[in-house]
Amino acid sequence: MTPATPAYRRLSVEERRSQLLTAALSLFAHRAPEEVSLDDVAEAAGVSRPLVYRYFPGGKQQLYEAALRSAAEVLQQCFDEPHSGPLLPRLSRVLERYLAFVDGHDTGFSALLQGGSVVETSRTTAIVDGVRRSAAEHIYRHLGIAEPGPRLRMTVRTWITAVEAASLIWLDEGKQPPVEELREWLVEQFVAVLTVTAGRDAQTAALVGTLAGDGRD
Amino acid sequence: MTPATPAYRRLSVEERRSQLLTAALSLFAHRAPEEVSLDDVAEAAGVSRPLVYRYFPGGKQQLYEAALRSAAEVLQQCFDEPHSGPLLPRLSRVLERYLAFVDGHDTGFSALLQGGSVVETSRTTAIVDGVRRSAAEHIYRHLGIAEPGPRLRMTVRTWITAVEAASLIWLDEGKQPPVEELREWLVEQFVAVLTVTAGRDAQTAALVGTLAGDGRD
Repeated sequence: MTPATPAYRRLSVEERRSQLLTAALSLFAHRAPEEVSLDDVAEAAGVSRPLVYRYFPGGKQQLYEAALRSAAEVLQQCFDEPHSGPLLPRLSRVLERYLAFVDGHDTGFSALLQGGSVVETSRTTAIVDGVRRSAAEHIYRHLGIAEPGPRLRMTVRTWITAVEAASLIWLDEGKQPPVEELREWLVEQFVAVLTVTAGRDAQTAALVGTLAGDGRD
Repeated sequence: MTPATPAYRRLSVEERRSQLLTAALSLFAHRAPEEVSLDDVAEAAGVSRPLVYRYFPGGKQQLYEAALRSAAEVLQQCFDEPHSGPLLPRLSRVLERYLAFVDGHDTGFSALLQGGSVVETSRTTAIVDGVRRSAAEHIYRHLGIAEPGPRLRMTVRTWITAVEAASLIWLDEGKQPPVEELREWLVEQFVAVLTVTAGRDAQTAALVGTLAGDGRD
């Protein structure tokens, strides 16, 4: 026999914290934060309520923010994509991972982004904004642009918001159309909105030229 | 002499309420809600603080929501546009009025839509969502579409969010580019995103055909 089964093993502070966060994230992923209690988190993690409070003395708000920070990290990992090969397939792969995340955290994703939640604070907004900023910076790096001008910045940031909005609508419409169609539609939208901006902005026009050439490689 | 100057005239309940709301809206338009006190509202309206509380016993939260409702009405009036003439100039005129509203309510507009505000509740979110829904319905009516399918709905709703996002970025960037350029860029984006959807959706394809024909009238 092994000395102890995992269920009885004494966890380190970090392991325990991580176990509680995992339990919290899995609950917040599929229920509105209003509908998750600390009792639920304790039960899901198989620990006592006082233990949850010992790790998160700020109660549900603190636990929610910690779970959100951990979700933001997972989401930012979706953006990691090698800087090689044609650009649009890279974008498509990033969107594939992003949409899998949305699919796997549906209710929590909607509750977070639809606003008006009791757990929404300037801190939760800052975490979400950090993810948006990081997405924009990944895009500029993939496009090989060190200093995006205001028109390109507006186009990229607006498209990122459109991706979020489309994800929320997709969840709201019972995950229709099929995720592959949504993904390719978003890639095509990216090219379309850049093409509109290219009519007024030399930096974006040069970029659209590259994207068009890219497809023919 | 007239019997009383406007400053001394006794106002009806409705007039007084409307006077307080106007004062509140002008303050909430250019400051974050956190930075507006009931004292400020009383001072701006030239009345006592107890009088503000008599009309809005729920305090700042109630006053904020009432001001937001009144702003939402003003904003919905921007969407009123005769159903005649080519479609894209109609859209351009609606956007011109919408962007003038954004320009005139800059700080309040940002605070409202950026989330995480102390005055944000499920009720304020519902008011904002009501404006978005109304915008989408105006668009379907102008396009002459009684039953928009899911792909067209997603395109229109996503574009509406893109307009909001672009407005916030525009405020954030010190109202650059010039408002006329932003407006025409948004109109062109509308055509571009519909054109992408048209590749997958017969309803949208028919519509894009109409828009193209429209320009040649």
